[in-house]
Amino acid sequence: MFSVTILGNNSALPAYDRHPTAQVVTLNDQLLLIDCGEGTQMQISKYKIRRSKINHIFISHLHGDHYFGLIGLLTSMSLLGREHDLHIYAPAPLKEIIELQLKVADSTLSFPLHFHLLEEDGLIADEKTFSVECFATRHRIECRGFIIREKKKPRKINKEKIAKFDIPASFYDRLKDGQDYEAKDGSIIQNEWVTIPNTPPNSYAFCADTIYDERIAEKVKEVVLLYHEATYLKALHEKASARFHSTSEQAATIACKANVQKLLIGHFSSKYESLDQFLTEAREVFPNTELAIEGVTYRL
Amino acid sequence: MFSVTILGNNSALPAYDRHPTAQVVTLNDQLLLIDCGEGTQMQISKYKIRRSKINHIFISHLHGDHYFGLIGLLTSMSLLGREHDLHIYAPAPLKEIIELQLKVADSTLSFPLHFHLLEEDGLIADEKTFSVECFATRHRIECRGFIIREKKKPRKINKEKIAKFDIPASFYDRLKDGQDYEAKDGSIIQNEWVTIPNTPPNSYAFCADTIYDERIAEKVKEVVLLYHEATYLKALHEKASARFHSTSEQAATIACKANVQKLLIGHFSSKYESLDQFLTEAREVFPNTELAIEGVTYRL
Repeated sequence: MFSVTILGNNSALPAYDRHPTAQVVTLNDQLLLIDCGEGTQMQISKYKIRRSKINHIFISHLHGDHYFGLIGLLTSMSLLGREHDLHIYAPAPLKEIIELQLKVADSTLSFPLHFHLLEEDGLIADEKTFSVECFATRHRIECRGFIIREKKKPRKINKEKIAKFDIPASFYDRLKDGQDYEAKDGSIIQNEWVTIPNTPPNSYAFCADTIYDERIAEKVKEVVLLYHEATYLKALHEKASARFHSTSEQAATIACKANVQKLLIGHFSSKYESLDQFLTEAREVFPNTELAIEGVTYRL
Repeated sequence: MFSVTILGNNSALPAYDRHPTAQVVTLNDQLLLIDCGEGTQMQISKYKIRRSKINHIFISHLHGDHYFGLIGLLTSMSLLGREHDLHIYAPAPLKEIIELQLKVADSTLSFPLHFHLLEEDGLIADEKTFSVECFATRHRIECRGFIIREKKKPRKINKEKIAKFDIPASFYDRLKDGQDYEAKDGSIIQNEWVTIPNTPPNSYAFCADTIYDERIAEKVKEVVLLYHEATYLKALHEKASARFHSTSEQAATIACKANVQKLLIGHFSSKYESLDQFLTEAREVFPNTELAIEGVTYRL
């Protein structure tokens, strides 16, 4: 199971009951939170996200609509008695802000908080079942996107085929890893005779806030699902550029160039009450586009 | 018009769609915001509060459920192009937090922000139609309550009575101030012959977070409306004390001792889904009690 649940799809000024950026990536029993705008903890409750399962939080940049909800989420986790580690991947000054806010409240958290400061592009998390890379986007202040890649999954045993051979069950894990089996008589049972490939690893790229920048297409090349911001419609492309944001059409162009399977667009300006036109303009360029809608889970 | 609108009535952990502390006091065309927990700007939109009319914000203390929404509100006011002055009355470290958050975002506000640091009890704002005093409550960290007092209102001209005398309209403002009129023949027209008293000035005391402390009753003596926190029911009075909070019964006891006209209780623990028992326990001690309910406006 690899999915993305949208908790906030609006840009800086909350409007029409749309909230600032926050997304939860579900990777089997691991939840990864990407950005954490004001009200994220309320959205987590509303959409019944198991907050105790969130062990990794990624903050793209320090504009408030991407992190003002973090301190509230942390203090609530602490009030609920969380004891297990939490990892935050964020620009360095966020650590100073959080520490100052805890200090003035004369508070400590009930759990170990590990800050991983985003200083350069590359691998930032390497867990058993997934890895996370970050990459620079081009925004008014330093900003990074994230690519979450599922690790290659073990091959599956083909039960019908394997019954024809005399292979001990203790060797099955090595078969899943792709090894051949050498029988006692020296004969080789080739791996592909008794296993089948698993589904290919999924990958999700979150492009944070960014002006249209074709270098991003290179960075997120061929991910399964791409999230790209689309703050404005194409009529306002000059405003988009001036504010280091993108249009819906530009997001779709990046998706085309990156040859991704599917595009999700969000971070809509509060100028727009209806979002229909965002979808229309993106699909003209990249048909397999969806709007990021709050409360909706997009499965990869 | 003097009223209090509740935007958040819950204690630290948001629950049951109840939000952390925030209240708007309406004094004719002036709006005063008291405390600003996470999500206050969304509550302001939801309940159609005219945010441009908020010129004074009072922050009782630096536990997050009383101020985490402030930076989001300020940045949204700025995005909306606000240009007129905003006054914040708060413990000193809040200024450092806000300035740090603006700095890391490479942002400035579109309007002048004036910090008034709460350092001792007494008068903190003295405006044309109202004044605000602060007073220390007893909480785990430094915390202050606020008393908002309407200024004495001018007497009203009694149109029937004044028609019997020859008083120039240019003297009416002085009549409203309580002066007598001396006619050209030297005779005195006494003020109370031609005017009637206005309604008595209203007053509202917000007691912030506090353990039960009878000294508070002295400080808020005879205000018209008293808000006192009631985090727990009386069965948990020991927990209340240990955490420097009050029970519903204790809030009502303060209201009795202070001889106020009406009591409003709030800051309910997320332990309690139903609030009925809070009202029952308070009314046994002080019958004229109301629950602070989000979205409800209580007129004085």
